[in-house]
Amino acid sequence: MLINGVPEERVSALDRGLLYGDGLFETLAVADGKPCLWRQHLERLRFGCERLRLTPPDPVLLDEEARREAEGHHRAVLKLILTRGRGGRGYASEHARAATRIVQLTPWPERDEAQCAAGVRVRQCRTRLGQNPALAGIKHLNRLEQVLARGEWSEPDISEGLMLDAAGRVIEGTMSNLFLVRDGRIFTPCLSRCGVSGVMRQQVLEACRALAIPLLERDIPLRDLWDSEALFLTNSLIGIWPVADLDGQPFDPGAIDRRLVEYVMERRFHSG
Amino acid sequence: MLINGVPEERVSALDRGLLYGDGLFETLAVADGKPCLWRQHLERLRFGCERLRLTPPDPVLLDEEARREAEGHHRAVLKLILTRGRGGRGYASEHARAATRIVQLTPWPERDEAQCAAGVRVRQCRTRLGQNPALAGIKHLNRLEQVLARGEWSEPDISEGLMLDAAGRVIEGTMSNLFLVRDGRIFTPCLSRCGVSGVMRQQVLEACRALAIPLLERDIPLRDLWDSEALFLTNSLIGIWPVADLDGQPFDPGAIDRRLVEYVMERRFHSG
Repeated sequence: MLINGVPEERVSALDRGLLYGDGLFETLAVADGKPCLWRQHLERLRFGCERLRLTPPDPVLLDEEARREAEGHHRAVLKLILTRGRGGRGYASEHARAATRIVQLTPWPERDEAQCAAGVRVRQCRTRLGQNPALAGIKHLNRLEQVLARGEWSEPDISEGLMLDAAGRVIEGTMSNLFLVRDGRIFTPCLSRCGVSGVMRQQVLEACRALAIPLLERDIPLRDLWDSEALFLTNSLIGIWPVADLDGQPFDPGAIDRRLVEYVMERRFHSG
Repeated sequence: MLINGVPEERVSALDRGLLYGDGLFETLAVADGKPCLWRQHLERLRFGCERLRLTPPDPVLLDEEARREAEGHHRAVLKLILTRGRGGRGYASEHARAATRIVQLTPWPERDEAQCAAGVRVRQCRTRLGQNPALAGIKHLNRLEQVLARGEWSEPDISEGLMLDAAGRVIEGTMSNLFLVRDGRIFTPCLSRCGVSGVMRQQVLEACRALAIPLLERDIPLRDLWDSEALFLTNSLIGIWPVADLDGQPFDPGAIDRRLVEYVMERRFHSG
């Protein structure tokens, strides 16, 4: 692990990342020793920095550190964490020192990828997502809602839980974005009030444009799930997971456009 | 600083407190070498642990550590942080190891206490509080909303910012609870959807019971502030601050029942 470029495993217990979750993170796949979709992750990190008024890290430096950690690993997970660092008085951050930059490499999660590609089991979570446009879309460190939602089940054959907002709109999975296939079109929830705008979600949007598949971002009431032909989930590690079962109701992974899945899955390990 | 009872300044960069804000904290006054309102803070910590399904720390151990850090300090701030520790895979915490317990002592904030007691300047923040009953009331580590709100001003003579929820109800200050005096009664916002249920807020509730002052917890629309006779703020360090000015409108600190202020201020440095 590198912390501000130095091999190190620990951070100050006065870091604002710990005290307040005052920071951002990115989770990337590493393939053949290189971070995947690097440019896209950096772009989202920059977007988050703008929102939180954090100074973005020097991209050349971060790139160098990420490659240094990733080198020699066939498959791994790279996590970048950026916090506002130490200092300031209470919540006020005007006198905070330099940001803290953490680059962590962890093992690639062990999953039966062929089985996941054939469709995963999903449940609906009771924990709701609070709405706050100021924090929506970005991948910040305030993740208690996801922790609580993920704590609702322990069955190993349930791969993901879907989360709604307080108004009952479907937003996303605990660690993934959601897409619906209905009448030959693809829908995905608006993320203007809550949710994380995933890099792989952006890849799906791009794929749909490239393949001329109609895609709509909009508010999605829960009932829309039940009369969808297919559902799928995305994130930077999994690429696309078709949903085979949501709380006992089967869905047909075959109803997802093959070209779209191939387009996204082929590119997910690109260095970007 | 003590981390799990050991003198130490740093935590693992894999601690869930840093990764997800997966934990709780308490901020206490230290007076004459002892943590103040200890029992009350411990009670709220236990309440937060229940909500987040964290194992509460051994109270005897925590008490011993807090006293060890506080000893010899006339006035200081004691911060307890409790996180779910390291481990688990992603948001799932079932395989997380033991909690991390941090006891930090920081200097007492330099403020003109006499001037604050005479009334502080307050502003209304643009940053809203998201609503989530699962997280409301407890003092968890997901504090980006407060950081953003506190970042809205840098004028040193503005002591606090008031925050509304998305529906426009007044909830609290960035670091304090809010009370309104109207027609000889005291009102304070409901904290069932968002906000932190402060220990000093509880002390005010208790004081009102003891002094037979009518107090109502209820939803408070913003307009109720403007036709209040007085406003005041509370937290564990400040006790009670009367509001002298909200965005240019003056309020009369003298309209706050003296007995109430004295009751709370006298007891705020009790060891509890």
